[in-house]
Amino acid sequence: MQSYYLGVDLGGTKILAAVATPEGQILARAKRKTFPRTRAATFPPQALAQRIAQTVEDALDKAAVPRTQVRAVGVGAPGPTDIRTGHVLYAVNLPGWDAGFDLGPTLQELLHLPVFVDNDVNVGLLGEATFGAARPYRDVVGLFVGTGLGGAIILDGKLRRGFRWSAGEVGHTFLYRPGKKPKDVERVASRGAMSKKLAKAVRQGKSPILAEILAQRPDDRITSGVIRRALAAGDPITQKVVARAQKTLAVWIASIANFLDPEAFILGGGLVESLGESFLQPIREQALALLFIEYRKDDLAILPAGLGDDAGVLGGVALALERSSQEPA
Amino acid sequence: MQSYYLGVDLGGTKILAAVATPEGQILARAKRKTFPRTRAATFPPQALAQRIAQTVEDALDKAAVPRTQVRAVGVGAPGPTDIRTGHVLYAVNLPGWDAGFDLGPTLQELLHLPVFVDNDVNVGLLGEATFGAARPYRDVVGLFVGTGLGGAIILDGKLRRGFRWSAGEVGHTFLYRPGKKPKDVERVASRGAMSKKLAKAVRQGKSPILAEILAQRPDDRITSGVIRRALAAGDPITQKVVARAQKTLAVWIASIANFLDPEAFILGGGLVESLGESFLQPIREQALALLFIEYRKDDLAILPAGLGDDAGVLGGVALALERSSQEPA
Repeated sequence: MQSYYLGVDLGGTKILAAVATPEGQILARAKRKTFPRTRAATFPPQALAQRIAQTVEDALDKAAVPRTQVRAVGVGAPGPTDIRTGHVLYAVNLPGWDAGFDLGPTLQELLHLPVFVDNDVNVGLLGEATFGAARPYRDVVGLFVGTGLGGAIILDGKLRRGFRWSAGEVGHTFLYRPGKKPKDVERVASRGAMSKKLAKAVRQGKSPILAEILAQRPDDRITSGVIRRALAAGDPITQKVVARAQKTLAVWIASIANFLDPEAFILGGGLVESLGESFLQPIREQALALLFIEYRKDDLAILPAGLGDDAGVLGGVALALERSSQEPA
Repeated sequence: MQSYYLGVDLGGTKILAAVATPEGQILARAKRKTFPRTRAATFPPQALAQRIAQTVEDALDKAAVPRTQVRAVGVGAPGPTDIRTGHVLYAVNLPGWDAGFDLGPTLQELLHLPVFVDNDVNVGLLGEATFGAARPYRDVVGLFVGTGLGGAIILDGKLRRGFRWSAGEVGHTFLYRPGKKPKDVERVASRGAMSKKLAKAVRQGKSPILAEILAQRPDDRITSGVIRRALAAGDPITQKVVARAQKTLAVWIASIANFLDPEAFILGGGLVESLGESFLQPIREQALALLFIEYRKDDLAILPAGLGDDAGVLGGVALALERSSQEPA
């Protein structure tokens, strides 16, 4: 009898669910806003768990797969998570979750299926390692350039979750020179930080090119797509801001390569998807030039993630696969 | 029948060997200069292996332990090492080793005993984890402040040796702020870097206190002991240089804590031994203040190493124990 797995990607704005085979072939998807309109600030975690369960049920209905053939559900949650219990320790983007929430047990009761929960960035890298670009590697650091800068670590084929379930906080490693205040890497190298800097340049009238691109949009959000268009149009301020982020990521990658000596780095997130190789190539060159070892420099892979928008749900499937093979359902 | 293990610490200036029980009790020690006087530059690796073997034989003789009761020999070598083969990839402090040397197989042939070789900093941390300060932890990063800045990583009870046998190069992670050139951490936070900076201050007449301390010595080397005396005498330049190193180590520890989320950091090396808690306490305070996680901050241990000068040989014993229990002799 064919087994199926359910992957869930719980974000601050939307819930995605998918039914897939153990090989990562997606049969059906479902989607819901995380919060009903205007109620985000006061929405209780228990009610959010019900919305997640409904989204899972929608995906199951669309896939027309009987529940008895679903082995397990894997969920990526936007906060550090004790994977043994499914307890999310906190989630800054979900109101009311400051004191933590028993997401795993609650969903398990609602769905009558084994549910495994982990941090969303861990889940994303697990997806890449199981079905995506990180598949050939047993040793990989994932970097996700988005509103923030997320990270996850797989060593010897196993996610490094951390002694306090908190490993991978790349964004909160520091840029530092003696005499200066330490600054979070995220404050330079995330798409969010770049957008903020560029928005300021627009306000100050320093980037007519960006201002023109924004004038053609319904809102003034500086998305990854806007950054791509500004680069294509040769905007010098965007070039400078992106180059600063690239150099910072390159120095970070070289530092971690010298310290942890992993096989590969996988870079993902909206900005990497949007800019592609033109973003990655300068990072690769600058990082390799800073490697300490004098041999086997060339086999350090610095690659783009492969799963795009499906990374979260396929990561959930990978988590369900990983955990259900380890623990009795 | 009681089993014994042999630990060897191969450095750029001396070879140390010790015979010990599996519990790390040392029965006898032996010592030799790494190179015969004036011949360092041209001494062949094969001849150095013979000196190591002689030192091991000396320790065995002193311990009066029959060779048949020695289970294995563990060696810490001053360079990245493929532990599967005992091949040292290179060792900057050993002339003639640039192209690597088969230290393990060569010693095995000379000693007629199973020989295991690993990088000396890995071996040092393994010693602390097996017999010293890191014993309570399954998850620990070691930092050794000496002429350079060395590091090693134990995760889930296992040394992280790296995909290219090169993990732990803490000294070659970078201090960086956008717009500035990346600078190796070692160039600020090692004892060697501090000594260099202080020697310059003395030459420029900026530190009469240090100059006086040095005048009482047979040479003008700024050792860890000299730094301790200068701090005790209230020398402002030494205070400043040491505070810079402390802050740098604190930011580094916080970065790695946020990224790797280990249970503990163990700091060793001559300077840490010499200055003790007065060196560690400011590092601890500044590092904990920079932790990203808002829970369980207090259980991040930042502790001094415990084995002192025996770290190398006891680490060798720990390596011999670890490896001989995994592989048939």
